Amino acid sequence: VNEHVRLAGGAEFDLIRRLADRYGDAAAGLGDDAGVVPVPPGEQLVASTDVAVEDVHFRSHWLAPAEIGYRAAMAALSDLAAMGAAPRAMLVALTLPERWRTAVDEVADGIALAARETGAPIVGGDVTSGTALALAITVLGSAVAPMRRTGASVGDAVWVTGALGGPGLALAAYAEGRAPDLEHARRFAAPRARIGEGQWLATHGATAAVDISDGLGADLAHLAAASGVRVTVDLDRLPLVAGATPEQAVASGEEYELAVTGPASLDADAFAREFGIPLTRIGTVESGDAGVAGTRLGKPAPIPAGFGHFAR
Amino acid sequence: VNEHVRLAGGAEFDLIRRLADRYGDAAAGLGDDAGVVPVPPGEQLVASTDVAVEDVHFRSHWLAPAEIGYRAAMAALSDLAAMGAAPRAMLVALTLPERWRTAVDEVADGIALAARETGAPIVGGDVTSGTALALAITVLGSAVAPMRRTGASVGDAVWVTGALGGPGLALAAYAEGRAPDLEHARRFAAPRARIGEGQWLATHGATAAVDISDGLGADLAHLAAASGVRVTVDLDRLPLVAGATPEQAVASGEEYELAVTGPASLDADAFAREFGIPLTRIGTVESGDAGVAGTRLGKPAPIPAGFGHFAR
Repeated sequence: VNEHVRLAGGAEFDLIRRLADRYGDAAAGLGDDAGVVPVPPGEQLVASTDVAVEDVHFRSHWLAPAEIGYRAAMAALSDLAAMGAAPRAMLVALTLPERWRTAVDEVADGIALAARETGAPIVGGDVTSGTALALAITVLGSAVAPMRRTGASVGDAVWVTGALGGPGLALAAYAEGRAPDLEHARRFAAPRARIGEGQWLATHGATAAVDISDGLGADLAHLAAASGVRVTVDLDRLPLVAGATPEQAVASGEEYELAVTGPASLDADAFAREFGIPLTRIGTVESGDAGVAGTRLGKPAPIPAGFGHFAR
Repeated sequence: VNEHVRLAGGAEFDLIRRLADRYGDAAAGLGDDAGVVPVPPGEQLVASTDVAVEDVHFRSHWLAPAEIGYRAAMAALSDLAAMGAAPRAMLVALTLPERWRTAVDEVADGIALAARETGAPIVGGDVTSGTALALAITVLGSAVAPMRRTGASVGDAVWVTGALGGPGLALAAYAEGRAPDLEHARRFAAPRARIGEGQWLATHGATAAVDISDGLGADLAHLAAASGVRVTVDLDRLPLVAGATPEQAVASGEEYELAVTGPASLDADAFAREFGIPLTRIGTVESGDAGVAGTRLGKPAPIPAGFGHFAR
């Protein structure tokens, strides 16, 4: 699987060859015009692209180069998790300013680690010069029945994986020039796409899913709009990282946890045993105007609508 | 097919909604975490990513905004043509500086036109801010037996589609501050991915193929290296656009024509009748050191090894 096509000379191909070496067994068949990706019979292909740009999505002094690569790949793979899909392949397009030509080896290491951890070989990509480091990562996966955002029904429960608030608190610390709590920094720098969790939820009756990239409130608003339902969230039930308030947790973006709708009867204990993270029931799907409503200590509470990248 | 998932509010989603409106019936099912792509039973999925960056791959005063979009999409789709694949879907990740927020509508029009012309609906993408306009376009296609770069055999003939030299002459004119010849400018601004041509060649016995992005000489060098063969090109046989010399034609990049190896017996007349462009036999595959050798007027002639983007 890892027999790369031989490349002719030239500076660009030296760089592609160097990246392929660095990807190692995380890459497969690089060097042709296009990569070939197996899709199991009876499954549908799902595809998503995600871009991470220096000074828009991260600052280079917040993250080690390998973390920049790992994080960008996991953010892209998280969209497959939200579809309940199994990763099949990844394509990596890098824009590399001159100052990144050395550290790109470690960026590639981070991408390759995410590829290995999730079983998504790197089958293609592109490299170009440019003024800001950018990683455009396309992920391909497959599923018998992809989970959509459109399937939530009145009466469903709302569930969330993991514990929320870490990335938001890390970003707040960086913005104030403070070093973030180590656990918050780790949650920001090394998110894990909930691949196995997404497949488990899809096969246990989840009706709709999103990954939390813009913040739980904002992402549930997308799900509510897509499904045409009203989602209510009990902020007192939110699973929190140490140090986070419910208000911080509901607004924290780039979590890459999953929020799903589905049966109230999901076996959270079995989920926690299998994946080592909690699955928490946080709300319900109701009829009414499409949108998200919150309660806190029994009273209505505002739900923040969005999450903006710091440089916008 | 064009029922987009409803999106919640926020500036980023306003922009995504605007792009989806602009794509019109060229888009399908945008707004979920990932797009769903049908792959016909018995076919293999092929995938490729291509990035076009302002001031690296083009300057904005050379191209209308719609041409920037059309050209970037066709450049990406050309990799499917080189695999003999049928386009199935496209994902479009845009990096948009503030100054591009208005003209992005026309960029989207150009992408949508390429999607419609080639039957590759836009099923996903991303939008981010940044300092330079960049289009990272991923194309997905399928083929029963994708053409690889590795299949050339000693004794094969070498063929090329279309006429070469236009984009190189256009770039040379721009570099000298001259207006290029209109036909050369058109070849640079509005290349056509040779999709039908690639499928025809694959089903008529072509053994290996590349698209001409770096220049005929450089791209045949990739094919020769991948297949482990020696390719000889008779420069006197190259099909030329009006005004180009063979030396200019063999070095001209971003042509997006196809160079293939295969039987000497291909029916070039039938090809020309079907597609309205020539198919020209230009050389042979021989044994010996992997590489490309040229002849001109019966004497050995140098083959340029590569094509560099102007800003590198």
